[in-house]
Amino acid sequence: MKTAILSVGTELLMGQTVNTNTVFLSQQLNMLGHDVLYHYTAGDNPRRLKELMELAFRDCDLILTTGGLGPTQDDLTKEIACQVLKDKLVLHGESLDHIEAAFRRMNRPMTDNNRKQAYMPSRAAVFKNDQGTAPGFALEKDGKYMVCMPGPPREMKAMYESRVRPYLETRSDGYLVFRDVRTYGIGESQLETTLLDLISGQQDPTLATYAKEGESFLRVASKRRTREEAQIAVDDMVQRVVERVGEFVYSIDGEDLPQVVGKLLLEKNLSLSSAESCTGGLFASSIIDVPGISAVFDRGLVTYSNRAKVEELGVRQETLDTFGAVSEETAREMAEGLYRVTGSDVCISVTGIAGPEGGSEEKPVGLVYIALRCQDKIACRKIRMRNVGRSWNRNYAMLAMMDMIYRTISNSPD
Amino acid sequence: MKTAILSVGTELLMGQTVNTNTVFLSQQLNMLGHDVLYHYTAGDNPRRLKELMELAFRDCDLILTTGGLGPTQDDLTKEIACQVLKDKLVLHGESLDHIEAAFRRMNRPMTDNNRKQAYMPSRAAVFKNDQGTAPGFALEKDGKYMVCMPGPPREMKAMYESRVRPYLETRSDGYLVFRDVRTYGIGESQLETTLLDLISGQQDPTLATYAKEGESFLRVASKRRTREEAQIAVDDMVQRVVERVGEFVYSIDGEDLPQVVGKLLLEKNLSLSSAESCTGGLFASSIIDVPGISAVFDRGLVTYSNRAKVEELGVRQETLDTFGAVSEETAREMAEGLYRVTGSDVCISVTGIAGPEGGSEEKPVGLVYIALRCQDKIACRKIRMRNVGRSWNRNYAMLAMMDMIYRTISNSPD
Repeated sequence: MKTAILSVGTELLMGQTVNTNTVFLSQQLNMLGHDVLYHYTAGDNPRRLKELMELAFRDCDLILTTGGLGPTQDDLTKEIACQVLKDKLVLHGESLDHIEAAFRRMNRPMTDNNRKQAYMPSRAAVFKNDQGTAPGFALEKDGKYMVCMPGPPREMKAMYESRVRPYLETRSDGYLVFRDVRTYGIGESQLETTLLDLISGQQDPTLATYAKEGESFLRVASKRRTREEAQIAVDDMVQRVVERVGEFVYSIDGEDLPQVVGKLLLEKNLSLSSAESCTGGLFASSIIDVPGISAVFDRGLVTYSNRAKVEELGVRQETLDTFGAVSEETAREMAEGLYRVTGSDVCISVTGIAGPEGGSEEKPVGLVYIALRCQDKIACRKIRMRNVGRSWNRNYAMLAMMDMIYRTISNSPD
Repeated sequence: MKTAILSVGTELLMGQTVNTNTVFLSQQLNMLGHDVLYHYTAGDNPRRLKELMELAFRDCDLILTTGGLGPTQDDLTKEIACQVLKDKLVLHGESLDHIEAAFRRMNRPMTDNNRKQAYMPSRAAVFKNDQGTAPGFALEKDGKYMVCMPGPPREMKAMYESRVRPYLETRSDGYLVFRDVRTYGIGESQLETTLLDLISGQQDPTLATYAKEGESFLRVASKRRTREEAQIAVDDMVQRVVERVGEFVYSIDGEDLPQVVGKLLLEKNLSLSSAESCTGGLFASSIIDVPGISAVFDRGLVTYSNRAKVEELGVRQETLDTFGAVSEETAREMAEGLYRVTGSDVCISVTGIAGPEGGSEEKPVGLVYIALRCQDKIACRKIRMRNVGRSWNRNYAMLAMMDMIYRTISNSPD
């Protein structure tokens, strides 16, 4: 169905809150094969709400609303929905019981305006709110549907998952399935060029590239009559893409690079330690997001000062004096020293200039050296990042470390 | 002026992108005293765009648009703006020069559709794009204003700051100023209760509490005829709030807790080292976001394994065996060992259970011990976090470390 999403809330118009409800619902509706034509946000002005609903119903058969179901006089979504779809509010016994029970549990007195939340359009299918007091509902007239949900994202998502999605699934005219092919080491435009015939020749599945913090992704999407058909079409296309650019692909099932690296280390039972300078602990804190990683991650040293590099890792003062802290020599000695201290199978080090200050002509902001000691071999990679900003640079360097480990151990014998 | 914000972009309707442009512009417009009445998002359908603009102009005098200024046939914002405000597109020489120069710099051939970007409404005030090729513009007719900007957030923000804000400032009917009072260690509801008379008694400035990842904030806002008047009203109220809840306030000028702690360390010239277990490097990577921190931050050790705790910090195996890795005794030995190794003025350690697994009845997920050695004294704090999730827990523990340092050194003699 053609759909509009209407968010009610002054805090959104003030810019105090990011509208995550709309993103979530857009994804969900597209996955169910509904076309989202509009997003609207408005405050609690009844005339404007009514005008927006009427405008939406000119093009759309379905409006999803969030917000405006609360107990105060400003909360008007239900009233306006009744005006637009010709119904009236009546007391809904089950909802009243639920609200009364909630107040008893909280041991708080229930006021009259809380009763207001139990009034529902007489023809509505009422959706219970497991996370709060305000129920939601769906109302239909002459093939026009309105689904109203509470505004707090936690309440809205729970209600959507358990009650609204099943309701909408039966009214869907197709299913959208998509899958992201995640790559590292190839730019977005190069990725697009390499796959141009697939991208421009296809009606379904569709292929679209996008860039995200130093990585290039490809989204393969298909809309078919059933979820199974769409899944098969997507999987076939992903297969063709991997045949073409497989050397850059690290994940086709939603995992990010730290997760892929962490799982590979666990699979191969390789222990890991890290020594970071410019990334300041970002590598360590990214790898420990992987469930179970404590079995192989020994330690991470953030040797920010030169003194720490000397004391913790045995980097020679002479090396620092001659080549500087940001140099291939220092990176190598950091990785070698880390191995002497920890004996870990995989020892990775990084040193670089994350900016915004500290750069020079010879060693500009964005210069990074990564050294990896693995199975008696040591390798060093020099990278030059575009100077996009300190936190972007750090993230890019962290990903380059992950990529270096991934390439080294994914090809090594178990 | 009464304002609507219109975003053009199919990727928004697909839920692929969070609409950060709208949040940014809403904040900015509210700060300039404009009332934002609507947000709209639509795709590239010309009839719908036109209808939305016409609807918006019924209530509003100003529409800001983002997106749809690109070189392809789908990009129609300019054309529709001309239809609605009765103008026509003409070639704008300066914009053409700018676009041609950009292509020369990139050493790429310029196609005909790139020339399309240089066509502007004949009556428009044209805004140069310093970050890309598509210029923006403002167009007026009979007191109705339309300001059109490119969609990519980086280009839009730069254009807004340098060209659109000055344009809108001269058309503003008041100024909104706000300031966040950031607290740690007091819950949102307690904060609200303590300030209830100020919160409910005030028309202007307004006070509103909100919670963010373990912290409680209070936003004080005032809208007055001039920026100066609003600023004075806000500052006076912030002063009154600080008198009331000052013991929990760590910042009134937008700085987060790591920044406040980092600056305090720099001011007092106190060196810092950290030893982390459950936070996995998050403390180190947060503190090194502070500009210039390398002058005092010596090193951060992520001693994830027990072996690392023993080898790096000299934690006794007996302590680990008797009390466990998550215990006051281990936290204290970590901080003491860190001091022996580094000699830093401030040595902080953390050990805990971030979850989702690894908890027990005796030591549940969310249990954390933090030890701080500072000026020959060592203190330990035990905290119990609500088990909201691994990354929330880690962030909460990191903030508790920052808070412990802040309270200790802000009261110490220089």
